[in-house]
Amino acid sequence: MREVAVVGVGMTLFGKHTETIRELGEEAVWAALQDAGMSPKDVQVAYAGNALGRISGQEMVSGQMVLREVGITGIPITRIEDACASASFAFRESWLAIASGLYDVAMAVGYEKMTGATTAQIMEALAGASDTELEADLGITFPGVFAMVARRHMYQYGTTREQIAYVSVKNHDNGALNPRSQYQKRFSIEEVLASRPIASPLNLLDCCPISDGCAAAVLVAKDLAPRYTRKPVWVAASGQASGFFEPGSDVTVLKPTIAASQSAYKQAGLGPEDIDLAEVHDCFTIAEVLHTEDLGFAPKGEGGPFIMDGNTAIGGRIPINTSGGLLSKGHPVGATGLAQIVEIVEQLRGQSGHRQVQGARAGLAMCLGGFMHSDAGVVAVHILKA
Amino acid sequence: MREVAVVGVGMTLFGKHTETIRELGEEAVWAALQDAGMSPKDVQVAYAGNALGRISGQEMVSGQMVLREVGITGIPITRIEDACASASFAFRESWLAIASGLYDVAMAVGYEKMTGATTAQIMEALAGASDTELEADLGITFPGVFAMVARRHMYQYGTTREQIAYVSVKNHDNGALNPRSQYQKRFSIEEVLASRPIASPLNLLDCCPISDGCAAAVLVAKDLAPRYTRKPVWVAASGQASGFFEPGSDVTVLKPTIAASQSAYKQAGLGPEDIDLAEVHDCFTIAEVLHTEDLGFAPKGEGGPFIMDGNTAIGGRIPINTSGGLLSKGHPVGATGLAQIVEIVEQLRGQSGHRQVQGARAGLAMCLGGFMHSDAGVVAVHILKA
Repeated sequence: MREVAVVGVGMTLFGKHTETIRELGEEAVWAALQDAGMSPKDVQVAYAGNALGRISGQEMVSGQMVLREVGITGIPITRIEDACASASFAFRESWLAIASGLYDVAMAVGYEKMTGATTAQIMEALAGASDTELEADLGITFPGVFAMVARRHMYQYGTTREQIAYVSVKNHDNGALNPRSQYQKRFSIEEVLASRPIASPLNLLDCCPISDGCAAAVLVAKDLAPRYTRKPVWVAASGQASGFFEPGSDVTVLKPTIAASQSAYKQAGLGPEDIDLAEVHDCFTIAEVLHTEDLGFAPKGEGGPFIMDGNTAIGGRIPINTSGGLLSKGHPVGATGLAQIVEIVEQLRGQSGHRQVQGARAGLAMCLGGFMHSDAGVVAVHILKA
Repeated sequence: MREVAVVGVGMTLFGKHTETIRELGEEAVWAALQDAGMSPKDVQVAYAGNALGRISGQEMVSGQMVLREVGITGIPITRIEDACASASFAFRESWLAIASGLYDVAMAVGYEKMTGATTAQIMEALAGASDTELEADLGITFPGVFAMVARRHMYQYGTTREQIAYVSVKNHDNGALNPRSQYQKRFSIEEVLASRPIASPLNLLDCCPISDGCAAAVLVAKDLAPRYTRKPVWVAASGQASGFFEPGSDVTVLKPTIAASQSAYKQAGLGPEDIDLAEVHDCFTIAEVLHTEDLGFAPKGEGGPFIMDGNTAIGGRIPINTSGGLLSKGHPVGATGLAQIVEIVEQLRGQSGHRQVQGARAGLAMCLGGFMHSDAGVVAVHILKA
């Protein structure tokens, strides 16, 4: 397989927008093209990540609608959907299309428009990312399942409520340094603990917001990279795994995260100790605790104190969610996987300003899609290298 | 890129089913595995095509739900959506995953459950495959656009209403020989012309039905093929192109069909004259007339008489839609692309019974997704060889 480089990235501000997915898409795709110094006509193939098309009003073939805004038409365009990880897999298929030798230049784009819909519409749509027969129809929601995981983690490992809340504090600290973050405001542990209860023990500031946004990346074959950039970022690995339900299994372990990351570490020839920073799917504070453990950054059960001790803050051993993560930067579902890639690429280029991880050479992006405690879940793990 | 073989295919009867997509999926996926003599545990990666998930009740991560019914869990599973061509691109990504060298064994599956929804729900959902801002919101529907194309083809080339109707006669003749066809009944030209008007000049028997169904294929790297079959069918080419709107362009020409097929012919080192049979997207009778021309089987404008003269019937120069096509076999949207592959594979193996194309060595499958006269459309063209 051929080596593949990311040579351009772009994204909108995440947050509440009046623009449609087409307009958001135009902004992010154009930014990625400009970052690469590339003409729309150079793009040979594209993959488009989107999850909740029914809310934005363009349920099908939406990649074609978004990309034509910058003049990308005619080429192969395929929509990818794997719930919250849709854009991660648009990135993965773009990488594969080039690594295979079939194409030399690919555009990966992810977009979502969630605001403007009613809360009931959003809840119904998001429930479509669970096993609707066995989960949604029984009334369990995403905040509900992660609340149960939080309780279990506290019971099983002595993780404290403050340690969990600190994930939100840290990520909002980072988001305050990111001009494209939906929230650019700091919160104390006390403020997280005093925020409105959502699903006990999780409060409002333990949960990611509803967001609009778009993110994009341009990938090229190794030979073409020098034409577009002096700082190529290499796709060192792409790991993917789906959930598999086993009765009585430990809900504090997300097995597909372990499977996808082990596959990625092997492919990259790296271990967790070689990773300089990571973007992980902090849809809820407790999720980041799990990922910190399941990705091998901290031993199982020790994620809480590991995070509280500052190991995952900027300047710590392994900075996590320097972008602000889903909690602060926002979570436009179908865009999130590529927004993670944008952050890692800019960090590896040394372009992250006040939130720069000094000397970063290898970064990891990890994204969840669907319900992680049943067969409905899927995990993406990408490793990028400077 | 590595050579890839199809070693197993399976599908349900297309039609009106009481089963869910999970149950339909189980039947087709299991049939494909059995056809290959393969254990579910041998499958390393899967791509799932589905378009109208909101109707079947599992809008997201549905591939995981369908495949776990036969015990395929844990592996990378990605959902592909490109409207009516969703399953064609699930097949394409499966091929690419193996051709790239990343995996050795892939499952492509496509499924749709449409009956049970109200006509209004189905119409609203299908409209999501057009450019919703520029097309659906202005009131144009798929029957409407193909009716206009039919009028224009009749005006421009002298194509007769009878020639267009004969596509339905031929495909129902073929469907009557296919035990998995939704309709197994013959109709005369007179009956097509006397059927209920839908969008003039198209009548009910010019339009494909609403259907439920699932189709699947197992693909493996060349080295593994002998382990699973004595009759491998090779993926000789995979072409894809999206629509591109040009004011004043000829509506009787589907440019992405030309682009995708030229790309596929080049990849396979074959021309239209080398193809022994084709499955094409006859969502409406007139569509097959266009495809017969745009794929190079007949010169532009001569599709009507070419078909009427029996050139595309079984026993003719280039049999088209030996399965019955969408018109007779049915059109469960997200399954159609793979049902075409099933037919081509069985024909190339010589397993098609009374509708067998004698000595068939090369077959072409062509599928449309979205509105074909604007940027919203996408075309898949696959060429398979015995």
